[in-house]
Amino acid sequence: MIRAGVVGASGLAGGELIRLISGHPDLELVFLGGSSNAGRRIDELHPGLRLARLPTVEPVGDDLADRIDVLFLATPAPVSARLAARLANRVPVLIDLSGAFRIRDQRNHEHWYPKVERTEDLVDGFVYGVPELIGDRLAEASLISLPGCFATAMTISLAPLVLDLGLDLPTVVVDGKTGSSGGGLQLRSANLHPYRSGAIAPYAPVGHRHAAEVAEFLARGKPGSIGSLSMSAYGVSTVRGLLTSCYAFPAQEVSQRELHRAFLRFYKANRFVRVRRHTETLIPVPDPQAVLGSNYCDVTVLHDEEGGRVVVLAALDNLVKGAGGQAIQAANIRFGLPEERGLEQLPVVPA
Amino acid sequence: MIRAGVVGASGLAGGELIRLISGHPDLELVFLGGSSNAGRRIDELHPGLRLARLPTVEPVGDDLADRIDVLFLATPAPVSARLAARLANRVPVLIDLSGAFRIRDQRNHEHWYPKVERTEDLVDGFVYGVPELIGDRLAEASLISLPGCFATAMTISLAPLVLDLGLDLPTVVVDGKTGSSGGGLQLRSANLHPYRSGAIAPYAPVGHRHAAEVAEFLARGKPGSIGSLSMSAYGVSTVRGLLTSCYAFPAQEVSQRELHRAFLRFYKANRFVRVRRHTETLIPVPDPQAVLGSNYCDVTVLHDEEGGRVVVLAALDNLVKGAGGQAIQAANIRFGLPEERGLEQLPVVPA
Amino acid sequence: MIRAGVVGASGLAGGELIRLISGHPDLELVFLGGSSNAGRRIDELHPGLRLARLPTVEPVGDDLADRIDVLFLATPAPVSARLAARLANRVPVLIDLSGAFRIRDQRNHEHWYPKVERTEDLVDGFVYGVPELIGDRLAEASLISLPGCFATAMTISLAPLVLDLGLDLPTVVVDGKTGSSGGGLQLRSANLHPYRSGAIAPYAPVGHRHAAEVAEFLARGKPGSIGSLSMSAYGVSTVRGLLTSCYAFPAQEVSQRELHRAFLRFYKANRFVRVRRHTETLIPVPDPQAVLGSNYCDVTVLHDEEGGRVVVLAALDNLVKGAGGQAIQAANIRFGLPEERGLEQLPVVPA
Amino acid sequence: MIRAGVVGASGLAGGELIRLISGHPDLELVFLGGSSNAGRRIDELHPGLRLARLPTVEPVGDDLADRIDVLFLATPAPVSARLAARLANRVPVLIDLSGAFRIRDQRNHEHWYPKVERTEDLVDGFVYGVPELIGDRLAEASLISLPGCFATAMTISLAPLVLDLGLDLPTVVVDGKTGSSGGGLQLRSANLHPYRSGAIAPYAPVGHRHAAEVAEFLARGKPGSIGSLSMSAYGVSTVRGLLTSCYAFPAQEVSQRELHRAFLRFYKANRFVRVRRHTETLIPVPDPQAVLGSNYCDVTVLHDEEGGRVVVLAALDNLVKGAGGQAIQAANIRFGLPEERGLEQLPVVPA
Repeated sequence: MIRAGVVGASGLAGGELIRLISGHPDLELVFLGGSSNAGRRIDELHPGLRLARLPTVEPVGDDLADRIDVLFLATPAPVSARLAARLANRVPVLIDLSGAFRIRDQRNHEHWYPKVERTEDLVDGFVYGVPELIGDRLAEASLISLPGCFATAMTISLAPLVLDLGLDLPTVVVDGKTGSSGGGLQLRSANLHPYRSGAIAPYAPVGHRHAAEVAEFLARGKPGSIGSLSMSAYGVSTVRGLLTSCYAFPAQEVSQRELHRAFLRFYKANRFVRVRRHTETLIPVPDPQAVLGSNYCDVTVLHDEEGGRVVVLAALDNLVKGAGGQAIQAANIRFGLPEERGLEQLPVVPA
Repeated sequence: MIRAGVVGASGLAGGELIRLISGHPDLELVFLGGSSNAGRRIDELHPGLRLARLPTVEPVGDDLADRIDVLFLATPAPVSARLAARLANRVPVLIDLSGAFRIRDQRNHEHWYPKVERTEDLVDGFVYGVPELIGDRLAEASLISLPGCFATAMTISLAPLVLDLGLDLPTVVVDGKTGSSGGGLQLRSANLHPYRSGAIAPYAPVGHRHAAEVAEFLARGKPGSIGSLSMSAYGVSTVRGLLTSCYAFPAQEVSQRELHRAFLRFYKANRFVRVRRHTETLIPVPDPQAVLGSNYCDVTVLHDEEGGRVVVLAALDNLVKGAGGQAIQAANIRFGLPEERGLEQLPVVPA
Repeated sequence: MIRAGVVGASGLAGGELIRLISGHPDLELVFLGGSSNAGRRIDELHPGLRLARLPTVEPVGDDLADRIDVLFLATPAPVSARLAARLANRVPVLIDLSGAFRIRDQRNHEHWYPKVERTEDLVDGFVYGVPELIGDRLAEASLISLPGCFATAMTISLAPLVLDLGLDLPTVVVDGKTGSSGGGLQLRSANLHPYRSGAIAPYAPVGHRHAAEVAEFLARGKPGSIGSLSMSAYGVSTVRGLLTSCYAFPAQEVSQRELHRAFLRFYKANRFVRVRRHTETLIPVPDPQAVLGSNYCDVTVLHDEEGGRVVVLAALDNLVKGAGGQAIQAANIRFGLPEERGLEQLPVVPA
Repeated sequence: MIRAGVVGASGLAGGELIRLISGHPDLELVFLGGSSNAGRRIDELHPGLRLARLPTVEPVGDDLADRIDVLFLATPAPVSARLAARLANRVPVLIDLSGAFRIRDQRNHEHWYPKVERTEDLVDGFVYGVPELIGDRLAEASLISLPGCFATAMTISLAPLVLDLGLDLPTVVVDGKTGSSGGGLQLRSANLHPYRSGAIAPYAPVGHRHAAEVAEFLARGKPGSIGSLSMSAYGVSTVRGLLTSCYAFPAQEVSQRELHRAFLRFYKANRFVRVRRHTETLIPVPDPQAVLGSNYCDVTVLHDEEGGRVVVLAALDNLVKGAGGQAIQAANIRFGLPEERGLEQLPVVPA
């Protein structure tokens, strides 16, 4: 059994990691870390969980490295940066879910994460990316940084256009819509049920840092292929799930048939990316409700002849494929397991 | 008292007209028309309504013209087209809420409304537009066609850019998000609560006919100012309310300050358009929940320096400013009343 | 114009009072009081409101009495108790929406409100009750205490059984279901959207203080008629609106026909109580969504032959008939206006 | 591998069975039956499912018995009655999720299911009950009838009071609250999102047939222990999940401590029943959102001293423990597997 620890155990991504590790045949949950909730039992903090062997939340101590094989950091970026600096050379495998190590370029990083300090050496040690796109490098990584929930959907949407079809995309506009669990459990008015229920809330109408990591990642894959990539983000009345709509205006001609085939081809080997036609089921897809609780990302590509647009829609569960599930998937690849081990649950639909 | 009739009384827009006319000091509800529900009492069909004087739904008869001063058609486009052809010369004022007469260009109309037949004469007789932008012409109109709910928000968003600032907008992408009442009471799986609750449903990812009427209207105001205007529409888990996000890439330079001032100036005299700053209240605005039940359209303009974008967000209640309320507003102007008469209710927030 | 002030202006009941007073033809909003938000503009605090004449929140000063004719206290019970002690003899009419003065019996009060101190004199000065049941006394009151939102629905449900039909009810069980706005804007985990959305939350499964005020009120009307009155309260995924289900086991025989007729008779003169048959409209009623935004209370009485039960269901909007609207209604009666003045809005349905 | 078939594959319970069987290590899905959707692929009908080996919906043919080891009927009661009559002696194990064979007493059955005909012989052949309470008999059953979703929660709530503590309960009132998936995918107005969202809908305020099966079952266990058992049922704005509140007035004295201990003792060996204290986690429990997607039933017992009441609350996912999951659990027991096989998923929280 691979011994796993989770820091940030009292947050939503932490809870999701606990849920998934508890059901994983090859992972054993041996450490739950946290600072403000140290000493509390995990079932006080997560109403759905009551574990047979129930670890209590502990502070991260110096003996941690000896107790675990893999450590998941489901902590805010500044905390992840500090923990990674402290533990990087001591923990066999460290997987960070925060934004601390996503953006490689230091200037770009400082613009979007002004409070998150890190050394260049440490950044260089991290492998970053959607597991589907960096599988080879993951298999040998000891420091792994995973994309944000929106960034995961956007990367899955744009990669086939750029890396498979080789399109140039001078202008890409992304409209992201997310459920409330994306904002965690922060106690502020806009997150209260009376205000969030029924909302269509433009919480980041210009400038979202997830766009920056996607642009940098794709530029490494094919420099210059994307001109401007701008994003706006909205909170809607869902709890789990997000949808990104990438509106791209390619420099080259491309047909609906070519687009759909390219997506099928590009993701042929990837079980968790389901390329779907818009009308293939009784509700329009992709819709995040059709992947709820699962590690799937549903993706649909459409050609808008009138607008000269390519529209790529991607839906995922922000706590699974956008956080905890993707982290397990990365760990599976790292430890030589099938990527779907422990992640085989089908979506819980409707919910 | 101005005698008002409503056809399509059993639908959601019809119900909203009944609600608003019942509280209007100068309108008297004298006729409720419908075909499939003829003979039924209105409170069977609308659970919120129990009227002191309770008309029963009637078929539209030939004596109707003598009984009313204004007739609201809250009917599907094909029905509106037939009724308008039959009643146009006989009813003093006819206000159509459907898409039958919105698009003037016949080829364009046939593309988007292939089943809606109408004569050129009849089309020419109609005045079309958001009341804020066509006030003068409304005052003398006997045939009035009102924009769709999305089109209302888009027009309010784009008009100041084009008509006041004189910007050229080669590319405009619109992302529209709407609550379920926008789809009426159609009995199909995708509208059932289990599937629509929690959904982020891409029901019209490419090609939405509301974009066509907006483009045509703005082109009449300033020919050539908009290049491509493409729209994608999503259903979210709200019941009432919609938000449109217009992402425009202007050919000219423009600053945040100029944009905000232009909107304030353009809508200075218009009580129902509230130009708001994004962070002026405790939830991000504009959000349709902040206008629920009212005739307001909240609008915010933002300059995205990095993306070179102008982002205009507009929120309204699709059943009020997007349907019944705007129809009352048009009637007020037509009959020489203050445009806000009977529409003074403040939003019901939170709900 | 009657000059009105609202203390607790930043809360949800306060916001509702502002909404309703702003649309009231005979009330003029002249004072908005609050402590923690003093100095802030009301439209920062309430996203739906933007008032032409926009008062700023002020602390309650000693000159207040001269500036107003009626003061509404939408404050927590301890604050109401302090403010009432300070202002009772100086403000012409004081209307308290809190629980500070609802329970007359001091021992009973101390049990349910252990932290709310008040003098016997002050309690004796208050008139308490649902306006429909205490109209005569309201007309001359200068101190008015209004029932809680659940208590309003329960009193409207039980009064006809006890006061009209003269039934003895040895056992009454009340199951109350409420939307999230009933809990105000308290920043705690259970109120966050991710946890409250989709919840059926037993937040007060035994012992709810609203039962106490109802039992005491009905006992004053007909001593001994109710044996045990116990209540359980649940939070559901609605924002506005509550439903109470009173399950009563009467000592006497009574038929469905007698029950329905008694309710019709009892509320004949009361515009805001709509006695409805369970199946009279296309959704089952009473349902709070059918009264949303209005001052109506929909009530239905059913005889369950098999269970020997009388089931009374009552639905209202907790922020209107359960708070701000009922307070305006009481003020209308007090100042000799028709009780519905400023409260004529029909429900906003669906929303 | 045990070969499993599902009839009613296009309904919500059918979809849930497919989801669970697909992830079950010892069950193999070999047949999907249905009439109106025969010939359609299952992923057209269930947006969350895309199966590697994807059976198509077929009509139920005469060769079915040879192809399967266990057949699940997720069909309406009249269809189940007909299919059971046809297949009872031919299919090795038949598990019916409908109400066709729940009530043993024929008069009682005819009252609640007037359109469901069945022979006495067939009824006698069925074993009925919550698996936790009839484990021994299940192990040898070839015809199994499972309780309704509400009945499961009620039985789990009342059994310890009657069967362990031996209390006499002259009066029990049950208030049931359910999400919209409980009503299936019926196309009617009250199920549409605009009307169901935000609803607190009294859809069965008196007389619910689930009460009848519970009363009969408990009377077989301890005759005369329950006097009157009456139920009222409400639809709330959740999709999945239900909560039952049993308000019982026992003839004997009993303390909170005795009650909680009795529940712990009674369900000690039952993994899927979690006896919880009301305040043990950060949201009040039991709440169906804390069991979403899982086969758990959370149950809490409370003594209300003032009301002389025992309050038992039980929460479950109506599509899992209330339908498909419980059916798998019964099959596991029947085939000698651990009852939790294939049902180990932890709840998906929050969702």
